[in-house]
Amino acid sequence: MNAPLPDHALTAHARRPLPAAMLDALRVRFGERCSTVAAVREQHGRDESPFPVTPPDAVVFCESTEDVAAVVALASQHAVPVIPYGTGSSLEGHLLAVQGGVSIDVSRMTAVVRVNPEDLTVTVQAGVTREQLNREIKDQGLFFPIDPGANASLGGMAATRASGTNAVRYGTMRDNVLGLTVVTAAGEVIRTGTRARKSSAGYDLTRLFVGSEGTLGVITEVTLKLYPLPEAVSAAICHFPSIASAVDATIQIIQMGVPVARCELLDVNAVRFINAQSKLGLRESPLLLMEFHGSDAGVKEQAETVQAIASDIGGEDFQWASTPEERTRLWTARHKAYFAGMSMNPGCRTVTTDTCVPISRLAEIIETSVAEADASGLPYYIVGHVGDGNFHLAYLVKEGDVEQRALAERLSHQMVSRAIALEGTCTGEHGIGLHKMGFLVDEAGAGAVEMMRQVKHALDPKNIMNPGKIFAW
Amino acid sequence: MNAPLPDHALTAHARRPLPAAMLDALRVRFGERCSTVAAVREQHGRDESPFPVTPPDAVVFCESTEDVAAVVALASQHAVPVIPYGTGSSLEGHLLAVQGGVSIDVSRMTAVVRVNPEDLTVTVQAGVTREQLNREIKDQGLFFPIDPGANASLGGMAATRASGTNAVRYGTMRDNVLGLTVVTAAGEVIRTGTRARKSSAGYDLTRLFVGSEGTLGVITEVTLKLYPLPEAVSAAICHFPSIASAVDATIQIIQMGVPVARCELLDVNAVRFINAQSKLGLRESPLLLMEFHGSDAGVKEQAETVQAIASDIGGEDFQWASTPEERTRLWTARHKAYFAGMSMNPGCRTVTTDTCVPISRLAEIIETSVAEADASGLPYYIVGHVGDGNFHLAYLVKEGDVEQRALAERLSHQMVSRAIALEGTCTGEHGIGLHKMGFLVDEAGAGAVEMMRQVKHALDPKNIMNPGKIFAW
Repeated sequence: MNAPLPDHALTAHARRPLPAAMLDALRVRFGERCSTVAAVREQHGRDESPFPVTPPDAVVFCESTEDVAAVVALASQHAVPVIPYGTGSSLEGHLLAVQGGVSIDVSRMTAVVRVNPEDLTVTVQAGVTREQLNREIKDQGLFFPIDPGANASLGGMAATRASGTNAVRYGTMRDNVLGLTVVTAAGEVIRTGTRARKSSAGYDLTRLFVGSEGTLGVITEVTLKLYPLPEAVSAAICHFPSIASAVDATIQIIQMGVPVARCELLDVNAVRFINAQSKLGLRESPLLLMEFHGSDAGVKEQAETVQAIASDIGGEDFQWASTPEERTRLWTARHKAYFAGMSMNPGCRTVTTDTCVPISRLAEIIETSVAEADASGLPYYIVGHVGDGNFHLAYLVKEGDVEQRALAERLSHQMVSRAIALEGTCTGEHGIGLHKMGFLVDEAGAGAVEMMRQVKHALDPKNIMNPGKIFAW
Repeated sequence: MNAPLPDHALTAHARRPLPAAMLDALRVRFGERCSTVAAVREQHGRDESPFPVTPPDAVVFCESTEDVAAVVALASQHAVPVIPYGTGSSLEGHLLAVQGGVSIDVSRMTAVVRVNPEDLTVTVQAGVTREQLNREIKDQGLFFPIDPGANASLGGMAATRASGTNAVRYGTMRDNVLGLTVVTAAGEVIRTGTRARKSSAGYDLTRLFVGSEGTLGVITEVTLKLYPLPEAVSAAICHFPSIASAVDATIQIIQMGVPVARCELLDVNAVRFINAQSKLGLRESPLLLMEFHGSDAGVKEQAETVQAIASDIGGEDFQWASTPEERTRLWTARHKAYFAGMSMNPGCRTVTTDTCVPISRLAEIIETSVAEADASGLPYYIVGHVGDGNFHLAYLVKEGDVEQRALAERLSHQMVSRAIALEGTCTGEHGIGLHKMGFLVDEAGAGAVEMMRQVKHALDPKNIMNPGKIFAW
């Protein structure tokens, strides 16, 4: 097991120089779209992780695949690191320029390149966010379900294998990316996948890049599966006397095969924070926030089954939100839990954990982790996509308080170790980044990580693609 | 575009010697489980592809991961090829020992290692077939949906990214493998994935091995997702006046988001062959064979929607098969189409194609391909998992008739090129093997294939893992 404090992942590196020749070439090619202004660099050297700001040496605002290829070709020539940047919503330190280098900002790559409603596919540039995409396709009766809470870029979501609240029904980015345009470490452009729904044609390069966190190439375009907007949608809140009973209800719902679209757990602390932030007036108890998609009759049937299961286990106060406005209000509040936690605890940062276990082990890991969190005295809350066995325990630690942070990291460490022992994973959806490199070895074993390293060395021999992340070079 | 006849993939190789020292070591370790008997070698040097028998130099019947690791460690030491063998149902030449070497037969690895009904997961040895698995888990109210027709081994199904009739609802092996035990090219054992439903932990080695056709390692155990047996199942046959109208109905069913579990197209030739073979007495017209899974009400609703769509397009004679016996009879007949085609055309072999296109292009590619097949004068039939945009056009060519085979390959070539031009794939589910190496370059591009090659060279530097398949070394 690795040491509790993962800061060595941050400090193990020497910054590589950015040669003047490369900076000159970037300025010639990109003009004002290449910035070395301190504020811009600092903005690109942080994310939502608890690590200190670690800025790149330059930021290039790319507008096309060709732009990205031009930056990477120069980076390859000069052996300079490049770090793709979407919206900066990483929680695990993916964006930190631990070896310096150039941040490739794709946030201006916002073209929805092609919608094919008849095939339920879309191709977008990497900087399109999930909310933008859903706005643009709504009128065609379509939606893209993957919803990690943050309004992340689809390139970043692919790179971290994101998922979120809808994954229990619709899968994760792993399941919903049909193909990619990628700039390789040599600055060449390749395309992976096709618009066909399935294929057995060669190695699954698409899935190799999905979740590779920018360490193998830069994703510049993403082709995604879309879904018809369901005929009927309804959401329900069900309160439970304890977290354990809410989790038990979830386990039964999944084991019954109910095709619930969303099944979110909030503990009493999370409910308290979002009540304060979003004025929801929810009863302060553990609850499940659920959503059902289907035909009118199908949604009704799912809801009845779930209600029967929940009632059996002590669930009470089934409240329905059938109008789109009510549902949006609920889910927006849920998505703001992270910021609500911080605004209710001024001067704090969040240390968020992200484990996922086989669903039968969910009650066990949550109960033990809650007991430890209670005993620690740190403010915390739990939110979870529990239908997948995935949950987040978020500790609020005072900015700059080394002891509190070490305590949170120790609790996190214990919980992740527990998840791995229960045949789960150290990260359900946030990725490894800098934060979980030690855990990856614990989970996958040295042999599997060595194989990842062999792939990395083969595809990025100069170690310029987001170096220092996922595993040691 | 590559030349129509893909035999160069077979003949481009020199056989590597099997050193006496290695054979001795295998005999010491495996005794009678190591065979060099000609009949055994020949059985392991053929599959359902139209290529001539190309036997390995020895066959080892493995019973455990450790057995496989022992063979591969010796193979690595002596730089001898190894070819994993499950049930021999490949259609694309995967099993042919083009460079000689040792066939690793896993058909005795038939342990269902662990069922976790509470988590809907199972771990099996690679030689367990899909029918065996479904027999063993049925009493627990569970099933594994991936159904490529042949009673293939689950290791082989993972290695070729198989799918089949249920994929439109349940996905392919890509979506349903949670983790693998793999013997690497160095003879080491690694595990990929966990029993958690999702993970963002590092490179997706599971998906890298799924579809790698034995070229990166030998899969010895597979952890799979399971599903609760649906509360209700019903199957229906609907006849159509033309293939085009059957395809149009399919497109509308998918675009409406109906969660049909199976949606199979049979052309009039396929119906004729299976009628003769299985005495079904079906009306000889193009038809869709559909299956619906869900609650009683849900199945009824799906069926009504589909019936309305089909009727609108000229579908007629909706016949229902609600008893398990009737359904089994229908699907068994469907799965026997391949052998029915051959028994109705004595002395013939089958040249099967396997393309998959975005569903909106399905009518176009099928119509053109049917016109070409009709003009060719060769016997042929079409079956297709058309809900995915995937279909097979099978030509029956006289064994040993070079001209007929060349004609079939030319027709196949035209159809695959058409699929690629329509943004589809050269193989939906059969894999590349020997047969489609040229098409992989056409589809993925030289850059993407070069990246696959870099991965192969990194993980199998001696080129001992099923060499000569997917792409040239």
